[in-house]
Amino acid sequence: MSDPQTRQEPSAPLNPNASAFLSRWKGRTADPAILAEGILKGDRVMLSRAITLVESEHEDHQAIAGEVVRRCLPHSGKSVRIAVTGSPGSGKSTFIEAFGHILLSEGHTVAVLAIDPSSSLSKGSILGDKTRMQTLSANPNVYVRPSPAGDALGGVARKTRESIILCEAAGFDRILVETVGVGQSEHTVSSMTDLFILILLPGAGDELQGIKRGIVEMADLLVVNKVDGERVALGRQTRQAYRNALHLLAPADSGWTPKVLSCSAQKGEGLEEVALAVREFVGQSTENGFLASNRTHQAVHWFQETLLEQLKRWFFHHPRVAHMMPEVLKSVEEGRQSPFQAAHELVRLLNSVDPHRANQSSPEV
Amino acid sequence: MSDPQTRQEPSAPLNPNASAFLSRWKGRTADPAILAEGILKGDRVMLSRAITLVESEHEDHQAIAGEVVRRCLPHSGKSVRIAVTGSPGSGKSTFIEAFGHILLSEGHTVAVLAIDPSSSLSKGSILGDKTRMQTLSANPNVYVRPSPAGDALGGVARKTRESIILCEAAGFDRILVETVGVGQSEHTVSSMTDLFILILLPGAGDELQGIKRGIVEMADLLVVNKVDGERVALGRQTRQAYRNALHLLAPADSGWTPKVLSCSAQKGEGLEEVALAVREFVGQSTENGFLASNRTHQAVHWFQETLLEQLKRWFFHHPRVAHMMPEVLKSVEEGRQSPFQAAHELVRLLNSVDPHRANQSSPEV
Repeated sequence: MSDPQTRQEPSAPLNPNASAFLSRWKGRTADPAILAEGILKGDRVMLSRAITLVESEHEDHQAIAGEVVRRCLPHSGKSVRIAVTGSPGSGKSTFIEAFGHILLSEGHTVAVLAIDPSSSLSKGSILGDKTRMQTLSANPNVYVRPSPAGDALGGVARKTRESIILCEAAGFDRILVETVGVGQSEHTVSSMTDLFILILLPGAGDELQGIKRGIVEMADLLVVNKVDGERVALGRQTRQAYRNALHLLAPADSGWTPKVLSCSAQKGEGLEEVALAVREFVGQSTENGFLASNRTHQAVHWFQETLLEQLKRWFFHHPRVAHMMPEVLKSVEEGRQSPFQAAHELVRLLNSVDPHRANQSSPEV
Repeated sequence: MSDPQTRQEPSAPLNPNASAFLSRWKGRTADPAILAEGILKGDRVMLSRAITLVESEHEDHQAIAGEVVRRCLPHSGKSVRIAVTGSPGSGKSTFIEAFGHILLSEGHTVAVLAIDPSSSLSKGSILGDKTRMQTLSANPNVYVRPSPAGDALGGVARKTRESIILCEAAGFDRILVETVGVGQSEHTVSSMTDLFILILLPGAGDELQGIKRGIVEMADLLVVNKVDGERVALGRQTRQAYRNALHLLAPADSGWTPKVLSCSAQKGEGLEEVALAVREFVGQSTENGFLASNRTHQAVHWFQETLLEQLKRWFFHHPRVAHMMPEVLKSVEEGRQSPFQAAHELVRLLNSVDPHRANQSSPEV
């Protein structure tokens, strides 16, 4: 890969106790201004590098990444953010490959952020996905980025959300966020995208066990994939079964009635219909204001979530809290103390902690 | 109503700046030991009084209530806690009335905690419910307690959970928690009960719009009510439609397969089937350990929720946080600052707040 910035020295001070990861950055720019400028010009080497910084757990990297994001933020937001999920084997990658080509033919540029909760970058499954998306990722108007989810979902949230911002700043106007349909990560991804596509398999039986509760209800589009050859009749049944089921569910905030479609990504059949539904969704959501209001809600949601996450971290790492916690938790588990009393006891510590509030009464239970 | 303890003086000191509410308590006991002793003897005047203290927002009352709960806690837990929900008009109260009589005939004692999110105690709808449950509440083995939900769901959680503990300590072995199926409160109630019953109306159309997303998925038993006369055929269709829909949903943690039943609470038909399903659920959940493990999880959940709630209250009421918050929130809403950066900025304040941690670096974003 060519790298015109290789020889440039970093302008931000880096921790001399560099991690193994950091050493790979030696001699490469970590200057937020240069990175942001590169991204805004559509330089995907700079984009990749910035996303790597966003994904890093290293404090110095996070500081640089934060600054790059800050610079890119005013240039972001001009894409449609689409979540694509489905259980392993549903053919998500093949779907994205085929659907991505349709988006390209409509004149869009496409970034794919693939989150794999089960693997780190060095492991197999991501590589498999990457191989499967080969013809798509070779296109100059496409950027494919596999990301390890790691352990902390809060981490995934920040990393993915900031990666979306960087991709938008780099000019991509359709962002596909791919996850495996195994639970919590779908809620996370749903709360940072505009539109949620769930890929299903023909046959409403055992295969569906892999999809956790609540995922179906989050979907704006359900696409039964692999509907070809002998699976056509089964696919039709599955589609009808989901249509009946969705009929019973309450409507979403978007005012959009979820659609159930079918396709064969492998054979390239039915994808125009999916693309049409996406355009309809975008049209309707732009018109009724959902797209804009939903994004504002999402930003506030993530602000509150992150604040809470950090507040919790601060509190639970507080020496006195950390000291008391095991015994208090045990008393709750064993039913010796009511959960409310136990919480009250711990929070009382806060008042002795803060000199400004030490003389006030403890917060109301 | 007779009240043998009316003349007893409170042994706990009460705030002299008593609220209007407090004045009603003048001369009545507010001694936690006496209240707890009364409850354990099954004295429902004492039970009602303690629940009123639990529901009070007054600090002194909460202190007394906390002590009563603490004393009752070791004697609680020996009931089956059943949530009953459904949209207005689904006939919840009539169902509880009829179902309650079946439970009585099985030899159980029944406490009904009815949470009404839309009204205060003085308003109409609760009174309506109370009137409808008249034959049930007249039974000496039944205790019916309507409670206003008020504004704060966190408040409902604590109040309902502690009221359950008091009812159990008073000897009731079937606790029915009734809510209107309008959303968030169902999640709250679901996380403090063993079994969730959703009452539905025949006809799977418009009536269902009142039930929020996710409620159907929480139900262990779906009961189509008012299936009588001309509604029998429609009731059968509705039952089948829900059975098909549930078939598509993922299984619950309890290992229990949700059942869809139908009844006419008004005519007293089909309720034995519901009672049988409840017994099956209890039998299976006792055997596979779900009942016990779920209760432990719920206690820990409420401990964590309450802790977080109080931590948030403390933080957001902190003068410096309260001062900065409006501007920070605005910058997030307008997209001028990333949610993560904004949160980071606020949490940094904590380190200057705590003398023990002032010299440490801010928590990692």
